[in-house]
Amino acid sequence: MQEKKIYNPKTDTLVYALGGLGEVGKNMYCYEQDDEIIVIDSGVMFPDNDLLGIDYVIPDYTHLIKNKDKIQALIITHGHEDHIGGIAFLLTVCPIKKIYAPRFAKALIEKKLSEKRKLSKTKIIEIDSDSSIITKYFKIGFFNVIHSIPDSLGVLINTENGRIVETGDFKFDLTPVGQNMDYQKIAYIGASGITLLQSDSTNSEIQGFSISEKKVAQSILEIFKKTPQRLLVSTFASNVYRLTQIIKAAIACGRKICVFGRSMENVIEICRKHKIFDVDDNVFIDPDTVNQYPNEELCIICTGSQGEPLAALSRIANGIHKHIKIVPGDTVIFSSNPIPGNSVSVDGVINMLTRIGANVITNSPLNSLHTTGHASKEEQKLMIQLIKPKYFMPVHGEYKMLKIHCENAIETGLIEEENCFICGNGDALIVRNGEVFRSLNRIVTDSIYVDGTDISGLNTSVIKDRKILADNGMVAVIICIDSRENKILCKPNIVSRGFVFIKESQTLLKEAENIVFDALKIKMKNKTTFGELKNTVRNSLEPFLYEKTNRNPIVIPVILNHIDAINMKKKS
Amino acid sequence: MQEKKIYNPKTDTLVYALGGLGEVGKNMYCYEQDDEIIVIDSGVMFPDNDLLGIDYVIPDYTHLIKNKDKIQALIITHGHEDHIGGIAFLLTVCPIKKIYAPRFAKALIEKKLSEKRKLSKTKIIEIDSDSSIITKYFKIGFFNVIHSIPDSLGVLINTENGRIVETGDFKFDLTPVGQNMDYQKIAYIGASGITLLQSDSTNSEIQGFSISEKKVAQSILEIFKKTPQRLLVSTFASNVYRLTQIIKAAIACGRKICVFGRSMENVIEICRKHKIFDVDDNVFIDPDTVNQYPNEELCIICTGSQGEPLAALSRIANGIHKHIKIVPGDTVIFSSNPIPGNSVSVDGVINMLTRIGANVITNSPLNSLHTTGHASKEEQKLMIQLIKPKYFMPVHGEYKMLKIHCENAIETGLIEEENCFICGNGDALIVRNGEVFRSLNRIVTDSIYVDGTDISGLNTSVIKDRKILADNGMVAVIICIDSRENKILCKPNIVSRGFVFIKESQTLLKEAENIVFDALKIKMKNKTTFGELKNTVRNSLEPFLYEKTNRNPIVIPVILNHIDAINMKKKS
Repeated sequence: MQEKKIYNPKTDTLVYALGGLGEVGKNMYCYEQDDEIIVIDSGVMFPDNDLLGIDYVIPDYTHLIKNKDKIQALIITHGHEDHIGGIAFLLTVCPIKKIYAPRFAKALIEKKLSEKRKLSKTKIIEIDSDSSIITKYFKIGFFNVIHSIPDSLGVLINTENGRIVETGDFKFDLTPVGQNMDYQKIAYIGASGITLLQSDSTNSEIQGFSISEKKVAQSILEIFKKTPQRLLVSTFASNVYRLTQIIKAAIACGRKICVFGRSMENVIEICRKHKIFDVDDNVFIDPDTVNQYPNEELCIICTGSQGEPLAALSRIANGIHKHIKIVPGDTVIFSSNPIPGNSVSVDGVINMLTRIGANVITNSPLNSLHTTGHASKEEQKLMIQLIKPKYFMPVHGEYKMLKIHCENAIETGLIEEENCFICGNGDALIVRNGEVFRSLNRIVTDSIYVDGTDISGLNTSVIKDRKILADNGMVAVIICIDSRENKILCKPNIVSRGFVFIKESQTLLKEAENIVFDALKIKMKNKTTFGELKNTVRNSLEPFLYEKTNRNPIVIPVILNHIDAINMKKKS
Repeated sequence: MQEKKIYNPKTDTLVYALGGLGEVGKNMYCYEQDDEIIVIDSGVMFPDNDLLGIDYVIPDYTHLIKNKDKIQALIITHGHEDHIGGIAFLLTVCPIKKIYAPRFAKALIEKKLSEKRKLSKTKIIEIDSDSSIITKYFKIGFFNVIHSIPDSLGVLINTENGRIVETGDFKFDLTPVGQNMDYQKIAYIGASGITLLQSDSTNSEIQGFSISEKKVAQSILEIFKKTPQRLLVSTFASNVYRLTQIIKAAIACGRKICVFGRSMENVIEICRKHKIFDVDDNVFIDPDTVNQYPNEELCIICTGSQGEPLAALSRIANGIHKHIKIVPGDTVIFSSNPIPGNSVSVDGVINMLTRIGANVITNSPLNSLHTTGHASKEEQKLMIQLIKPKYFMPVHGEYKMLKIHCENAIETGLIEEENCFICGNGDALIVRNGEVFRSLNRIVTDSIYVDGTDISGLNTSVIKDRKILADNGMVAVIICIDSRENKILCKPNIVSRGFVFIKESQTLLKEAENIVFDALKIKMKNKTTFGELKNTVRNSLEPFLYEKTNRNPIVIPVILNHIDAINMKKKS
């Protein structure tokens, strides 16, 4: 059992996450001493289908809002949504003076914030592996890592209690197509003596080493060379190295490139602006001219590799795309894997594309059309061998991923089991004089659900209600009373949605109205409150409905008070 | 085409190999400037079956003998025969004042030299990764690498023309069971700027990363736990980590250990002396007491994993071992792979063991009972990523291995194709001001065949003769002449071995004798020489024998001169 200690703000360094532990997404790691807080990354999580109507999940920023004057820097490791997607929400509730971000992430953040008009008071400072940030308690440096987006950094945080490394998202790729890993610097950091390593756990469960992006590039080029007619390629808009390889293959085969889908267009615009692709601008053609080119001279790059219903590829598959109609002979390449949970919708799109005549090629072990951006088991071990930390805290991942990452770490023989810390969001570690302990106190945090553009956040009970509504429907009971007279003015009226078919339900609902009416009449013999009346409605109705239908719809009592009605009339 | 330059001994550094290029074995790499030569490793090669009656192959040391006063140091990277086996031969022809070797190699060399009584004037100095050797032109440092024997080193050679790294034999193992790779130091060396990397090519053709020794240890332990009766394990005596794991598994299962086979006994004796195993001495039992222990409490470790006919396991399989007789229920584990060329003899031993009732378990992808000590493709790339050299020279390997190693190096994107040097033994590279060129001149070298304990060496034609003898047999023609009188004293006499059956050959050989006789009579009508007579014998006999038998035996003319006979009589 790991000993717990009490945090001494004056001399200890506190390490905790507001997001990213026990989940994949909304990464946010904090380092605190006395009156200084350093924040690394501010991501969103994309909800799975259980979170109905929710667009994003973000961390509860309460702790940062309370301590907003302490925040010295928000440091961004790279430009993926699970590391930058929360910035716009964070800034609305918590002013941050300086955001430090590498070139590509900076461009994406600026685009995002300018769309939401949130750039007023925050300064975004470009950093690279040579940058440093120095505050009273923290000296921060960086090192280049390989990930599926350019300009990805790992972070070294020097404190008076020890050195901490946060890897950011990374993989090792011995034959990289873009930025290389900074082996020498990482090993040098390791040689300097690292107290705590926080390392990317996303692919802890994957055996061996990941496939090189160069291998994927070769596979794409091979398929491009063999394809006679029009080519459509779908991949993650955020995977900039993949986009580069697809564009290079298209150019090598004499094809012009046309881009569809907003996120893809945004990324490609930024890449062209920052010369990431290093190709002639005239290879890109305007969507309106796409049908003027012969099929064999076209490569269409589009969103929708996850079967997202509104993405370009899904609209093409459904025959409702403005510019592109599939014709027999078209080849569609998925340079991606379905994220768990998306395979049904991806299969749906593939089936539709195939039915209307397209030749669909997906990733498989035989053709290597996709590879991950995250370190698998052996790469995680290599990072540990290079960094040689005394203490280890796996980050970025669900509980089982963190657990397995610890096992991988222990297997190297460099880290003791009792020096591995599996934490949840809000759990805090104390770094004190080169040693690490668990803190007795937790940091308040939670998941906040964001619905559309409403960034005020929804709490968990809203989501529970949506879940019940989705599964069981809703029954509203409207009762009209006069609270002064303690009288029911008319028989309750019941309306329902998503519960039972209206026709079937007429007798059922009539019966229900009678049951509620009887219960209310008994209740209102004595003086009562609105709350008691609502409970009476629920308590009488719910057992009855369950008995009759085996379902538990949300029962919503709506009480119309005659006085309110009169008052309202007066006001208007 | 790589430019060739002329070596300037005063200012250039010359790099060449006397052995180890275009072959696996007899490694010997040299670094020369002005009046100084540094030699790394002095190995033997074990001949394949084509080299009849040959025990070892060593390099031709002529260049070193000629320049023996220049030799400042012989540095040994590790204790395997292909790196130390040549030392005893080298010392008999070329005095070397100082041999620098890591602990385990030093112990093996001392044992070997003391057996051959060659330790007189040579000082063997123990080195480790912190050692340094400084001469006028060379500053030499070391780093720990993982290989299948403890105390393996890579070498850094600082010269005024650039830094050179020779990796020695190595593999990466992220979960090592013994000495770890010195990642931080290797990357630091890389960061200092390396001009030329010479890296181990043995496993260039093997995909991916090699299996960890820890995985093999787990497999061995699992099988040990499941085995009810007596256990026999065979592996390479030189694979000390494997021996350690086998011994640990035996102890974990409550078995005593008995060792058979001279090389195995030697290695285990040295390991026990140097506390490599870190186990109680009482787990080892005397061979003479082995049959006093119950079968289930015994683990026999023996030589013979390559099916060598005289090794302990082969003698056990043949039922001619002094102590061990296989009984049904015995389990025999091969913790090894057959080296190419040995699979027939290994299969023979396995068949015999199985026939007499043993349960034989060999390595397979399913049970991981063996792993290599050499870096495969991805590990080679990792070394290149860590060292980041400007120029690359693959070493330790056959031509195709060197070639593929270059391809692997180029794939990393760090090394240009024109900066890769595939060399043979004797090819020399000039390192000049941080650049590397091919030298116009070669260093004389060759393969010397050593027969038994005769270390004077045999040349290639001897081996060719043995090959012909083995394939076609021998025909000796004895003729008796009087050179003063220019007369043939009697009819030639022909004897043969390995050519044709004596019975069948009587008429054939009679006929042959007549043919030779006729030819000689014509030849000796005029004054002639012994050489001409010998040619006459060959030229008359060889076409005749080939016509009659379709074979080309070695024809050996033996001329007895009557005068010699008289002289010999006088002397005695």
